Amino acid sequence: MTDDVKINRGLMGIYFDRSGVSHIDGAKGELSYRGYSIHDLATHGTFEEVCYLLLRGELPSADELATFDAKLKANRSVPDAVLDIIAACKDGHPMDVLRTAVSALAALDADSQKVGEDAFIENGIKLTAQVPTLIAAHEAIRNGRAPVQPHADLSHAGNWLWMLKGEKPSEDAARLADVDFILHAEHGSNASSFAARVTVGTEANLHGAIVTALSTLAGPAHGGAAEDVMKMVQEIGTPDNAAAYVKAKRKNREPVTGFGHRVYRAEDPRARHMREGVRKLGEEMGAPEWYEILQGVVEAMSPYARHGLNVNVDFYSGVIYQLHGIPMDLYVPIFAIGRMPGWVIQCVEQQRQNILIRPLTLYNGPDMRNWVPIEDR
Amino acid sequence: MTDDVKINRGLMGIYFDRSGVSHIDGAKGELSYRGYSIHDLATHGTFEEVCYLLLRGELPSADELATFDAKLKANRSVPDAVLDIIAACKDGHPMDVLRTAVSALAALDADSQKVGEDAFIENGIKLTAQVPTLIAAHEAIRNGRAPVQPHADLSHAGNWLWMLKGEKPSEDAARLADVDFILHAEHGSNASSFAARVTVGTEANLHGAIVTALSTLAGPAHGGAAEDVMKMVQEIGTPDNAAAYVKAKRKNREPVTGFGHRVYRAEDPRARHMREGVRKLGEEMGAPEWYEILQGVVEAMSPYARHGLNVNVDFYSGVIYQLHGIPMDLYVPIFAIGRMPGWVIQCVEQQRQNILIRPLTLYNGPDMRNWVPIEDR
Repeated sequence: MTDDVKINRGLMGIYFDRSGVSHIDGAKGELSYRGYSIHDLATHGTFEEVCYLLLRGELPSADELATFDAKLKANRSVPDAVLDIIAACKDGHPMDVLRTAVSALAALDADSQKVGEDAFIENGIKLTAQVPTLIAAHEAIRNGRAPVQPHADLSHAGNWLWMLKGEKPSEDAARLADVDFILHAEHGSNASSFAARVTVGTEANLHGAIVTALSTLAGPAHGGAAEDVMKMVQEIGTPDNAAAYVKAKRKNREPVTGFGHRVYRAEDPRARHMREGVRKLGEEMGAPEWYEILQGVVEAMSPYARHGLNVNVDFYSGVIYQLHGIPMDLYVPIFAIGRMPGWVIQCVEQQRQNILIRPLTLYNGPDMRNWVPIEDR
Repeated sequence: MTDDVKINRGLMGIYFDRSGVSHIDGAKGELSYRGYSIHDLATHGTFEEVCYLLLRGELPSADELATFDAKLKANRSVPDAVLDIIAACKDGHPMDVLRTAVSALAALDADSQKVGEDAFIENGIKLTAQVPTLIAAHEAIRNGRAPVQPHADLSHAGNWLWMLKGEKPSEDAARLADVDFILHAEHGSNASSFAARVTVGTEANLHGAIVTALSTLAGPAHGGAAEDVMKMVQEIGTPDNAAAYVKAKRKNREPVTGFGHRVYRAEDPRARHMREGVRKLGEEMGAPEWYEILQGVVEAMSPYARHGLNVNVDFYSGVIYQLHGIPMDLYVPIFAIGRMPGWVIQCVEQQRQNILIRPLTLYNGPDMRNWVPIEDR
């Protein structure tokens, strides 16, 4: 064991495989899924189309989309046993409860044990359909309400808001949730997708890999940014305070939440689609000051943009959820709803040419030593 | 994106960090925990001592061990709610049920949300104590029996067998389980420990990381070898058939289960401690033929030893479990009982100098293309 071994902390810059799903150009601030720009997808696409695109590689024809959508809708319900399980741990953090519920679905559904491409796609569609149901059911149960049954006439995003609130969302609200899911659907080798691939590398099944992804997304450094930004907005309070807040943070060398991203040096290309949503929604709801606070922070941060400290996607999404009256601890689960197809397809890719993912650690512990009997210690 | 980027599939040979916990010399077939040879630990140590050693870095004094052991014992019970959750999904695979139960413990125990070294150690000791209880409770519940309460007079291994079978194990049986746990306690950057570190890298808590580890261990290529070997032994049937079985496998270029390991080129140093256990236990139980089958396979495989195809630890452990009458689907959960301290201390190491673990994939999908409206597809 020599000292000249190179340690790649964080595995930064190390390529572990190829992937044909999404492409990120961090320097230019570009993101595409299967060759389609995120801007086109967020402007023209629906989450269902994007799911199909990610899973199958091509945009669906009208017929293909109808079949796919019908399959998603048919899989929205969950077994009663999993609702009992949610009820038994209802006071936990929604990410812990969601992860417990998905893990339980593996134990409750014999199909979960199947591996291989077809099984991963089938189980992936099923779980993509079930995850919003699980989150909404937990939100109902912890508030003493009966879970709202899925609504077959509504889109994935529309039905999510329906189950969450018990009323049909406006078209604008459903579309904003739809875009939010599209923007979060896939993002290269992020930590949760990578962790899921490590799980698949041992020939584990898809449910296990999604459980891993949920555990990993739950970490504040991955899925927690939207919540942190909302807390920052509340702390700043009024647009006038934004500049002073940023100045104080920079002086104390503390990071400003919602800025900077491991892979982007330019602005995160997803951010603009949420920015416009915050502005419009804030105006509609008679709460324009949150948008103004956010823009105040952006302005105060502009001198640091050349250091790569640009706004990221989660800078705006938390405020949108807050305007919708969604509790802060559901922000990460909402991220999970969107990311489902990305996790699924990366697991599919991993199992195609599977290999155990097992990098090394360099030993820096004690040299070999002799056993000492307990009476001599 | 150039084609001359090096792809490190499986991250083989890539160092991602330093670790002072265990050292493996694969060429020589050596393994040590904190500088102590696995042979000394398996011969003289107890699992409790080894847990302490792994977590704290030094062997405990008698007083330190007594305090640590008391803490483990005090944490063996689990909330009733988690038993209800186990009952609700009792027909699932025990690994899925165990993972669901550990995930639920996160939702049921507010302390699970704490991060930092002290919280990780405290929660790690708690989970190490609880995991055998969860597995034994599931085994009882799925067989229509009430879970057996933990027995405070018994060691970690002895209490595990007590809860599993409802009777006090013989000294030999308890010691064999103890040694099995010691041998499985830690093994460098294996896939499950690495996956757990990826989860911690997002600043997730320990419960989440252990859930990830369980998902990853569940894959047959990681935790499944003991079960596969037992199936092979049953297929071979009698010692006389061993040579022909191996010959046929080699001819068809199929792997022989229980041989070879990513890191060992010499014999897995853990194997010998289980080998002697199988021999003695088989004799005691009047079933010496299984040991003879195993040795017949080893003999038939000996020409391939120079290619690194040596016997690994799991070659013997499955047969030991079978001799004890333990169902095959509990073999991986037993591995998890042993591995708990290794997972915990690697998570502790990770969070000390934490960093997001996020390697890259090289994009090999379609070039940028224009959006096509659905009516034109």
